[in-house]
Amino acid sequence: MTARAATAPPPPPGARPRHPQLNAEGKLTHLLTLEGLPAEAIEGILDAAEPFVSIGEREVKKVPLLRGKTIFNLFFESSTRTRTTFEIAAKRLSADVVNLNIGVSSTSKGETLLDTIDNLCAMNADVFVVRHGQSGAPHLIARHLVATGRHHVHVINAGDGRHAHPSQGLLDLYTIRHYKRDFRALSVVIVGDVLHSRVARSLIHGLTTLGAPDVRVVGPATLLPPFVESLGVRPFHDMRAGLDGCDVVVMLRLQSERMRGALLPSSGEYFKHYGLTAEKLARAKPDAIVMHPGPMNRGVEIDSPVADGERSVILPQVTFGIAVRMAVMSTIAGN
Amino acid sequence: MTARAATAPPPPPGARPRHPQLNAEGKLTHLLTLEGLPAEAIEGILDAAEPFVSIGEREVKKVPLLRGKTIFNLFFESSTRTRTTFEIAAKRLSADVVNLNIGVSSTSKGETLLDTIDNLCAMNADVFVVRHGQSGAPHLIARHLVATGRHHVHVINAGDGRHAHPSQGLLDLYTIRHYKRDFRALSVVIVGDVLHSRVARSLIHGLTTLGAPDVRVVGPATLLPPFVESLGVRPFHDMRAGLDGCDVVVMLRLQSERMRGALLPSSGEYFKHYGLTAEKLARAKPDAIVMHPGPMNRGVEIDSPVADGERSVILPQVTFGIAVRMAVMSTIAGN
Amino acid sequence: MTARAATAPPPPPGARPRHPQLNAEGKLTHLLTLEGLPAEAIEGILDAAEPFVSIGEREVKKVPLLRGKTIFNLFFESSTRTRTTFEIAAKRLSADVVNLNIGVSSTSKGETLLDTIDNLCAMNADVFVVRHGQSGAPHLIARHLVATGRHHVHVINAGDGRHAHPSQGLLDLYTIRHYKRDFRALSVVIVGDVLHSRVARSLIHGLTTLGAPDVRVVGPATLLPPFVESLGVRPFHDMRAGLDGCDVVVMLRLQSERMRGALLPSSGEYFKHYGLTAEKLARAKPDAIVMHPGPMNRGVEIDSPVADGERSVILPQVTFGIAVRMAVMSTIAGN
Repeated sequence: MTARAATAPPPPPGARPRHPQLNAEGKLTHLLTLEGLPAEAIEGILDAAEPFVSIGEREVKKVPLLRGKTIFNLFFESSTRTRTTFEIAAKRLSADVVNLNIGVSSTSKGETLLDTIDNLCAMNADVFVVRHGQSGAPHLIARHLVATGRHHVHVINAGDGRHAHPSQGLLDLYTIRHYKRDFRALSVVIVGDVLHSRVARSLIHGLTTLGAPDVRVVGPATLLPPFVESLGVRPFHDMRAGLDGCDVVVMLRLQSERMRGALLPSSGEYFKHYGLTAEKLARAKPDAIVMHPGPMNRGVEIDSPVADGERSVILPQVTFGIAVRMAVMSTIAGN
Repeated sequence: MTARAATAPPPPPGARPRHPQLNAEGKLTHLLTLEGLPAEAIEGILDAAEPFVSIGEREVKKVPLLRGKTIFNLFFESSTRTRTTFEIAAKRLSADVVNLNIGVSSTSKGETLLDTIDNLCAMNADVFVVRHGQSGAPHLIARHLVATGRHHVHVINAGDGRHAHPSQGLLDLYTIRHYKRDFRALSVVIVGDVLHSRVARSLIHGLTTLGAPDVRVVGPATLLPPFVESLGVRPFHDMRAGLDGCDVVVMLRLQSERMRGALLPSSGEYFKHYGLTAEKLARAKPDAIVMHPGPMNRGVEIDSPVADGERSVILPQVTFGIAVRMAVMSTIAGN
Repeated sequence: MTARAATAPPPPPGARPRHPQLNAEGKLTHLLTLEGLPAEAIEGILDAAEPFVSIGEREVKKVPLLRGKTIFNLFFESSTRTRTTFEIAAKRLSADVVNLNIGVSSTSKGETLLDTIDNLCAMNADVFVVRHGQSGAPHLIARHLVATGRHHVHVINAGDGRHAHPSQGLLDLYTIRHYKRDFRALSVVIVGDVLHSRVARSLIHGLTTLGAPDVRVVGPATLLPPFVESLGVRPFHDMRAGLDGCDVVVMLRLQSERMRGALLPSSGEYFKHYGLTAEKLARAKPDAIVMHPGPMNRGVEIDSPVADGERSVILPQVTFGIAVRMAVMSTIAGN
């Protein structure tokens, strides 16, 4: 009467990840997290993404790199936006895409996560794009695939709990590199709910790996992780001080549920202290860029004139996001 | 703290539309409404639809006209039937189609309509097929695309509030032309809930533009718009008088919610006065055709023997509807 | 005011089916049930499935057999797993697939089942894959297509009420033939809720048609159909006696709602008597195979070591299921 665990336990604190995303030859075979991913692997994806940006501008936005491959969007947590970006990326690579909203599917019939994976593998799946509310679920799937010898099946983490969102991290890195070229002289500031943000976590890992010398996080004490310095970043509670002289400002989305809890007084109060306005942005360098993973809460974490202003690169982030996801998919699963 | 309006205000009464659906060269670039659309533009689509009817009868029902294009079905109001017709039309043109049911998506996260559009444009969208409960939403999107210089992105209104349903109007016109050839000698009668019907509104605009000399509307006073004569039609409350000697009968679907309100006594009473039976149809010309946009309420607005009878062209309407939607898509977005 | 019946009445008891799934030339045109389907038709599909198994192992898992065909997945009862298998099969045959979850669609607007079918036929549908909670719905559709002369449109029953699940039956037969070659010397045992199982019913019909001499069903009296011997099978209430010397064990999924009713005491009690353990399996032949249609309730009807053990062919069933569905689709609708 053994029951399989539905999800993996979180990795023990301080454990060194064993790069489960690289195969025996050191090539990327899963994308699970940017933590511990070597700089060459990250740069390889960023380089691979460049030609895909121009494919998006063609009359026929399609290449046959994944023709005849089957990609499953396994969304245990609903996210139309992220699912759409992966669906478009897969279709532009000519793959067959099947969207599975698993909240309403077989796991509700009591089937375990790994039985679902085994079944989809038996249907000759090539790639699983996995979004899950529990941290570690994509790792669990990748370990299971390795343990059962299915080295031709690949996992992409599309966001797991508070843990990681590596494709978002990669598109953020792509955007920064596109506008700023060299990471080794940059000051990057991440503002907002860093505590609950897998976006922030993935970006911080990527920036430190690529050699950004000055990464700062800005937010109220209730929304910054304890001991955040251990990630290699400097915490600020005063936003103006935090923005001082920086090259890149990354605003995080404020989840409305934070306001209902005890963490924050009100969205108006939040905007006053941590909303990005033209006046606060004036503390950054004159050519600083403004980023946001979307969807934005205008008037909460960012003022509309800034969001739509000439320093905003929020929409280019979306464009680069499709190209980066095409690069990830074709890198791990290409013919 | 500027917030963008979620939808456009209704156009001021009596305002002359500025043909926002035609580009600087006078070519159709969006399909928003049949009101004010020149006869040549309407006839151009009807002509373009003809070869697509025969494609639907082939072994391989597919042409590469939109290969590599990305079409978004943006349904803010759910309608499986209409969404399916656009999905099939797009797939037969070889486009990549992404269905987004926005009721459950990012607008529920507080993102504005135009932020959603900006994001999808940044993913290199080519066409938006938009269904929205509020009148004017597709116009708002089209104006935004023009204002931001995205002249290569196109909007098709798939039904907005009580305003317009132009692709339905075009398929109705196609059907009438197919069976009756010349609009300039026709009597067309539209029966039912004209007040709440965007289908009726679009068809009336199309018929008057193409020169139909006699368009009548039939229904109880509670379901006809006040001052309906200003649209160029003649109102009747007595159905037999209204059908007298006509060439085309268009029955409208009766929304069941009308019965729950104070507008109508009961569906039985409605059928007695405004349901199409063989006996009432005998007042029309012997070769009159019977149309209905579907889905039908048999026994409410139409009697089954009439719906399935030899004068019914209700199923051909559906077939022509796919061809007309292929014509619209390839006209506005074809390579 | 005639209203069309939403679904067909159940066939009268003892009525001989008239093979509505074969056309005038005796070729398979619909797949509705394995009951009464000639052995040659069944074997024809199993033979056709073999090359599709190897297509699933290729780099490019795609053939153009149904290019330009339109396949509708009409699921009036939600089943992500079954829908996914048909969607993958259709996409690997290069068909255009449209998924319709009809529970939330036009039938909720009061349209009858046959009006929905007429409409989709008018969109030039080629194949309907139909899942419905009421027995006989796919037959009703097939009869309607024949009666209206649409001989080029095909129906596949993807499970109707407690009646039949013929594609599951065919994949079970394919699996048994793959491992055991000749049906004419086999003992096959089906264990569990035979009473409510369309899977069991379809498999029993297939096995008796292909000449399996010894088919047994095992379960508590409350879960075996009365007069089950009339199907040509032997009932057992004691599982160990039922498994004695058999070649194939087919475990059925126990629906959790059975436990809430009066039919069963508890899942622990059920497992004790009818759960497949290594100890009980020892009563079967040493080379007996273990099957399950999925999704499994581990620890209820099957013990995990058996489900994952070397005699389990549960995952190969899934792989063969895709190939069998490709074979069915290309047999009935191929160019």
